[in-house]
Amino acid sequence: MRMAELSRASGVPVATIKYYLREELLPAGERTSPNQASYDDSHVRRLRLIRAMLDTGGLSVAAAKEVVAALDAPDLGIHQVLGVAQRALISVRDDVTPADREWASERVEALARDRDWHVKPGEPSTDSLVAILATFRELGREQLLEHFLDSYARVADELARVDLHSLGDGPAESTVETMVVASVLTDALLAALRKVAQVNASARRFEGDGLSR
Amino acid sequence: MRMAELSRASGVPVATIKYYLREELLPAGERTSPNQASYDDSHVRRLRLIRAMLDTGGLSVAAAKEVVAALDAPDLGIHQVLGVAQRALISVRDDVTPADREWASERVEALARDRDWHVKPGEPSTDSLVAILATFRELGREQLLEHFLDSYARVADELARVDLHSLGDGPAESTVETMVVASVLTDALLAALRKVAQVNASARRFEGDGLSR
Repeated sequence: MRMAELSRASGVPVATIKYYLREELLPAGERTSPNQASYDDSHVRRLRLIRAMLDTGGLSVAAAKEVVAALDAPDLGIHQVLGVAQRALISVRDDVTPADREWASERVEALARDRDWHVKPGEPSTDSLVAILATFRELGREQLLEHFLDSYARVADELARVDLHSLGDGPAESTVETMVVASVLTDALLAALRKVAQVNASARRFEGDGLSR
Repeated sequence: MRMAELSRASGVPVATIKYYLREELLPAGERTSPNQASYDDSHVRRLRLIRAMLDTGGLSVAAAKEVVAALDAPDLGIHQVLGVAQRALISVRDDVTPADREWASERVEALARDRDWHVKPGEPSTDSLVAILATFRELGREQLLEHFLDSYARVADELARVDLHSLGDGPAESTVETMVVASVLTDALLAALRKVAQVNASARRFEGDGLSR
């Protein structure tokens, strides 16, 4: 199909498609003449994935490029691609004070012992967890953190099993793309579900009973 | 304290503090002379909260302003402030096709019946959940969604109970601020914990066993 049809099929404006081509987020079409190229269903699918990464996942264009490059690299294993997708989703504050960082690192190590996790300092997922724990402390909310941390960590383990289990399904060749979709969309899915659940729990507890603060 | 001390105490540069004052994210200090104002510990705490909202929570300055305004409004109830904090954290795609939206809305209604949730269309948490379900469908991943949805929804209910339980603690006057901190930081906390758990689960399953895709 031509560019205009690709735009109709994907719902993405032509100018945006051209931008994604320039940024190498979208592979070039097959050239059919000096001014024309032909696109196929793989381009439609890729465009939808790009929109999901940018709009729903909140990735930057640079981060989405890294994910797309990993997706297209033939010799990366599943665990490596998961690492790339995760790094793209993670942003780590770099202005944490040494004292807060040390406190948070010790807390993460204790948590890892409890849950039998191997955490490596320098790994983006570990660093981001340390930075978030440090933020609770900065805000003087260590006690609040203690309320959440163990339940949240247990739930995170439970969800990681659900996530990996889901990879067993579907055609094998799409496992890696499935994993990327899952990484990008499930943070957003869980955040949205939690908000619906919170509104309901909060309405039951606080609304209409005249409780003010 | 003066501006320079406030900067030292909070770790936020003077230029940034001035920007927050102009944007009315930070309340003005008490004027002590035409060119000088005096700040106190409440300003330090507020600055930390602002940084947490912008850096860790990923809120826009406009969204953070709404949260701060709700926090300072004396006659908003807890449930209302939670609503404002949630809306600030939610961004909803508006380019979902009618067919995908209808499919997603029906799925959300079915989920609500299962979980005994009252969901109102037009409520930001509901709209964001509909948009995310629609995104799974756009990507042809309804089956993947079915794997996640029920477990994730159950977990969301469990976490909403943990979240509300934590509000019982601490001095009563800080309940609302606690709730805002919790709303802003726990999405990030859970996302980071999930990534650590996923890396561990994935390493156990895929690494070193020579499995390629």
